[in-house]
Order: sequence, then structure tokens, then C-alpha cells
Amino acid sequence: MLIVQKFGGSSVADTQRLQRVAGIIADTRKAGNDVVVVLSAQGDTTDDLIAKAYELTKNPSRRELDMLMSTGEQISVSLCAMALEEMGIPAISLLGWQIGMRTTSDYGNARIKTLDPERINRELEQGRVVLVAGFQGINRLDDMTTLGRGGSDTTAVAIAAKLHADLCQIYTDVEGVYTADPRLIPEAKKLDEITYDEMLELASMGAQVLHNRSVEMAKRYGIQLEVLSSFVRKPGTIVKEVTKVMEETKISGIARDTHIARMALVGLRDEPGIAYKVFRILEHEKINVDLILQSIGREGTKDISFTLDKADLNRACSALEADRDSIGYDHLNVDDHICKLSVVGAGMINRPGIAVRLFEALASAQVNIHMISTSEIKISVLIDAEQADVAMRAVHRKFFEE
Amino acid sequence: MLIVQKFGGSSVADTQRLQRVAGIIADTRKAGNDVVVVLSAQGDTTDDLIAKAYELTKNPSRRELDMLMSTGEQISVSLCAMALEEMGIPAISLLGWQIGMRTTSDYGNARIKTLDPERINRELEQGRVVLVAGFQGINRLDDMTTLGRGGSDTTAVAIAAKLHADLCQIYTDVEGVYTADPRLIPEAKKLDEITYDEMLELASMGAQVLHNRSVEMAKRYGIQLEVLSSFVRKPGTIVKEVTKVMEETKISGIARDTHIARMALVGLRDEPGIAYKVFRILEHEKINVDLILQSIGREGTKDISFTLDKADLNRACSALEADRDSIGYDHLNVDDHICKLSVVGAGMINRPGIAVRLFEALASAQVNIHMISTSEIKISVLIDAEQADVAMRAVHRKFFEE
Repeated sequence: MLIVQKFGGSSVADTQRLQRVAGIIADTRKAGNDVVVVLSAQGDTTDDLIAKAYELTKNPSRRELDMLMSTGEQISVSLCAMALEEMGIPAISLLGWQIGMRTTSDYGNARIKTLDPERINRELEQGRVVLVAGFQGINRLDDMTTLGRGGSDTTAVAIAAKLHADLCQIYTDVEGVYTADPRLIPEAKKLDEITYDEMLELASMGAQVLHNRSVEMAKRYGIQLEVLSSFVRKPGTIVKEVTKVMEETKISGIARDTHIARMALVGLRDEPGIAYKVFRILEHEKINVDLILQSIGREGTKDISFTLDKADLNRACSALEADRDSIGYDHLNVDDHICKLSVVGAGMINRPGIAVRLFEALASAQVNIHMISTSEIKISVLIDAEQADVAMRAVHRKFFEE
Repeated sequence: MLIVQKFGGSSVADTQRLQRVAGIIADTRKAGNDVVVVLSAQGDTTDDLIAKAYELTKNPSRRELDMLMSTGEQISVSLCAMALEEMGIPAISLLGWQIGMRTTSDYGNARIKTLDPERINRELEQGRVVLVAGFQGINRLDDMTTLGRGGSDTTAVAIAAKLHADLCQIYTDVEGVYTADPRLIPEAKKLDEITYDEMLELASMGAQVLHNRSVEMAKRYGIQLEVLSSFVRKPGTIVKEVTKVMEETKISGIARDTHIARMALVGLRDEPGIAYKVFRILEHEKINVDLILQSIGREGTKDISFTLDKADLNRACSALEADRDSIGYDHLNVDDHICKLSVVGAGMINRPGIAVRLFEALASAQVNIHMISTSEIKISVLIDAEQADVAMRAVHRKFFEE
């Protein structure tokens, strides 16, 4: 098998952890597999480098920040190659530009365009483990770029796709994907399998195991992912297109997001183009909105509610207040003390019973629901932030413990 | 003018020093010059990285060590670019591979083969200061290499040569080249000018201002060097082909080297091929010898003496003792408590008076001479290590203070 393994920054934070990671890689290699490894920067390296930059300037150039930050992964891969060679495993480290990792020019948040598998394949043919610096590439000017959040996961999946790898393992500090955050719900169960779509819904809702970018790419290229721990040697959670439990319409997880706020524009005129006016203003401010709900208001008016990142709340208010006359609304209603709770499961749409059970669990826990939103594989409800824990426990009990 | 400036590791060791360096660069740019800057790694960065490697393995691969170490210069150039931009000076950092710095494959000690000035020129045309990571390049496999001792100086001179720069300034922590080491001889005077050949002799004798590699390259391409301080804003010492004082046959400096030992093979047969046998053995062990002296011994035998690095002494002894029968000598004589003192000056050969004055100074200080060796521009004597200080002072007084 050809296996791509990715280890995050906490997994390679110091000498001892690097040796443990090298042990995992060595065992994979000794089992007869070809292995390509993608590493992040060690522990706090990236933060330390950024701090150095900000000692010099409050406004560092993004190009130079990428030049600076990309050293972190370079250190990880060269050290890990040494650790492997010390174990008698031939290994070689390669940088983004050395594998032709071409990206867009958006420094700090570049997207992968192409990569050239030739060098990696040549090294694999020589029997070497290939260690690739994650998170980095070069743009059309041959300048260093970094891939932004989830960049190393995405590097791993891109390499797996290009090399037609059999499996892409994402090693983290948790043992896999759980039915709920185990820090909140001790009864949470590790899933053996989950579909790409379910993973995408969970990832976007604060289950920070895998970044959406990498899951989307894995889905597009049909790369089987495994999320597992670099600290405990156990099988993790497999992420793939169709799982065996899909036909049972079981739900796979519950996630919550407390970093959101809700805004409501009350008393809008009931005429075409109003929603466009509102969200054009927000888009111009580069503010992402999540749930959107429109309802009939009193006396021929309508209300539009939406959720957004708490950090964007003040900017959104200012923008909408500045354009109050052109939009035409009665008043602006803001609530930043809320929580979004979501139940995710593939094929849910065919089983209305899921929603009923969710509402039943919330009702029995005396949790009031402010907004409801559904998609093919998820149901989200907006509730008061104080009730988040109670609600999570009630819903988890209903779906996974009864 | 096009000026190449090189700053060493101590000049960029922390934020404050980086800002001072950026100030020097900014002033050079504001004076209307095009500026290319070569930087070393900050302070102890390289040592810290090597220590990390040795925590993992006693025998790190040289390829991976180069991959690891080359991050140091990358950090320096990106930070310095930010410091310059903060001062309103457009700047861009470039790595070895980005300027096509092709080297031999000798990891850790690679030699420069070619470099492509295209990218640097394009950035200069845009009005930017170009910051190049020193010490690094890539070999024909596209793997990272480092240039070994004096590598950043050599990077700077190579760029100056390829770009036909008007001047290559080497900034260090001393104010220039002195008639003797100012830490030993407080009366030592800074030289305004010195020839390449004089600088080469001084550099090879422990005046650690410039590495021989960079001086040799500067001489080959006729690049005018200036050695000056990054801490004190004063003119330094210009190194060039012909200095105005050349016809006066003034001597330019006195250097001493205490890191050497002397070996003598006594009672060799007086027949052809003996010297070849001896030095072939040493060359096979990769031991460099410096002064070589052959003299007639007693009863048709001859003696060969030579000096070598103290660190190589044990290996040299073992090798020569192992081959004692094939070489055929009476006994081996070793002295590691010696010092080489050299007087350097272009055109010295035409003025025998220099040697006489040197011997006079040593005699008046009661210093005994063990060996004498002369070249076109230098006279070296081997003396007891205990007398090194006395001898230096006496010779310096004779040539520079009378």
C-alpha cells in the first residue's frame, strides 16, 4: 500500500514526540508500505516566528511572513528524517517547491493549484520514506506561500490524490471523530466510520479534528482518510464516501458552536430585493453568515434573521445601521448569547423521525428553540448559550445512549 | 552605484540589531544606490538547530543537516525585509534556489558553481532592496546545500561578481583590517587599504575578518571589498588589487597563529620520493599541512619538518607511525607548543630589509626562531608559544610605532 501520513504540530513538538512519530512511520514502512509523511511546524514554532515579526513591525508584509513561517515545517521534516535514519529507515525531506507544489498567490491563505509527483515517486522507488513540509508552496513568481488554516492536512490529501495513495492518515491528539466533543460529553463514542459529507458538517461546526478544505479535497478525489491519535496506537475513524451504516440513517454526531451571534432585521418591507440588499452589504464587508431565516412579520412586513461569527458582530451592526434608510427596517435585534447545536447524519432527509427525536430531547430538557435550519444531512437549532451543556447531554443521551 | 552588503550573524542577532542593520541598508538605499544584502543566520540559531539534530542522532545525514540549517538565513532575510518595509524602504527576501545558486553536492561544504542574476535584477529594477539568504544553494538534484565556513561572505562576493557590483561591503563586529589583532596589540592601526594577496595571507593566519574563499573570489573577479563595522559608522578597510602604498613596500599587518603544531621526521634516507611518500599519507588522511621545511641531516640523511593544525596532530602521528617502515625514518619529533608569527606586505620580495628588521625585532626581544618560511608577500617564523605576545609587541613596535 501507499500511505500518506500527516502529523500535526503537537505531535512533533519536541525530541521525544518526534521520536514517537518516527516510530509510527518506521512501523508503517516495515509493514511493507510505501510511506509519504507530511509534517507541520513543531509546537509553538510558528507563533514564535510571528512574534518576532511583530517586534519589528505592526504590519508585516504577507509575502515576508510566508517566507518566515515556512521555515517551521522545514525544521520538522529534516529533524524527522534524521530520527528515521537513526532507526535504520532511509528517509529524505522535501520542501514545497521541491515537489512542485504550485499555489495561488494569496500569501498566508494560498490554494493548491498543482503538484508534481515525479520527485516523490523517484524517492519512493529508492525505498525511502519521503517527508514533505506541509502548509507551504510556491506561486507563479516562485515565491514562498503558505496555505493558511488546515494547510498541512490539505497538503497531505493533495499528495495522496496525486499519488493515488490507498489511505491518507491524519494523526492528531484525539483518537478519532466522536459522536460529540468528549471534553463536554464523557459518554461520547468514537465512530469507526463517517462519510465525507457528515465530516464536512461536523468540521464546520467546531469539531476541530479535520479542516473542511482537506475533507472537501478528499471527497473530490475519493481519498480515504483516517483520523487517529499519534499518542495512542489504536485504529481511528475512517472518512469515506459511503459507510456501511448509511442505509440505517444513524446519526453520526452532535456538534455545537458557541462562537456565533444572531442578528434580526425586524419590520422590513415585503418586496423583492430586500434580502439581496442586506446580504450584499455584509458580503462587501467580507462577513460570512451561516443560518438565514426569513419569516412573515406583522402588517405586511417581514423579518430576516441570520447567524454570524461573534467577532464580526460589531462590524455587521455598523454596516447595517449605516444603510438603514436604503434597506428600510424597523429595528435591529442582536443576541450574542446563543449556541448552535447540530445533529449530523447522512441520509437523514429520508427519516423525519430524527428531527422529532431531537425536538423531544430538547423539550424534555426544557430547552427553548429560537431558530431551526435543516439540510440533507443535518438539523441545526439555535438555543440560549446557558442551555448548551444541558441540551448537548440530553440530545446525546437520546441518540447514543438509549 | 550597485552595492552588495553582507552582515554576519552577530550583526543580526536580535530585533534591535536587525533594526540597526536595516538602518544602514536604508541609508545606503536613500543615498541613491541599488542595494543587494546578504545575511547570515541570527546569532546562535545555527548552533541551536545543530543541537536539536544531535538530540536525535549522533550521526545526522549531511543532506538533512543542510536542509535544517538553511532555515536560519531564511528567518534573517524575511525579518530584515519587514524591518526595511517598516522604514518605508521596499524590500524583498530571496532564498538560494530563488536566485539559481547552484553548488556542488558536498553537503555542509558546497562550492558555488553558478548563479542566475535575472530575478535579483528584476527586483532591483522595481526599486526594491534585495535580501538574499547567505550560506545556501542547491545542487544538481535540487537539494539544499550549505557553503560551509565563510559561506555568507562568499555568497556576497559571488553576487557582486555576477551583478558587476561597484562595491561589496562585508559588515562585521570589527572596524576593519588592522596591522595586528587589536585585542593583543592595543597600538594596532586600522588599514585604509590592503591588497587581495595581503588579505589572503592575513586571513589564512588567524585574522578572522574575512574568509579566504571570499577574498580569492573577489580577486578573481576584481570585486572591491570593504570590511567595516555594523556597530560603528566609519569607513572600514578597502581590499583591492593594487593599493596606493604598494610601491612603498610597506608591510600591512602582523598575524599570529597558535592553533598549530610542528612535526619533524628525523633521519630520512636522502633519496627521491621520500617527501612524496610522507605527504601522500597525510593527504590520504585529509590533513592539511602549512609550512614545509626540508633540511640536510647527519650522515647523508635528511629531515622534513612541517606545521599542521593542532587538532590533526594525533591522527598525523598515528598515520606516520603506522607507515614508519615504508617511509623509513629514525624518529618522529613533535612540538605542539609553538606559534607562527607572520609579517605580510605586498612587494616585500623586493625589499630584503623587511626580513632583517623582523629578525632584529625578535632578537632584541630574546625570541628564538625555530623555522623561517617566506613567500612573495610574507615572512613567517615559528617561535615558542610562550613568547608569542612578547614577539608580537616587539615586531609591531618595530614596523608600526617607530
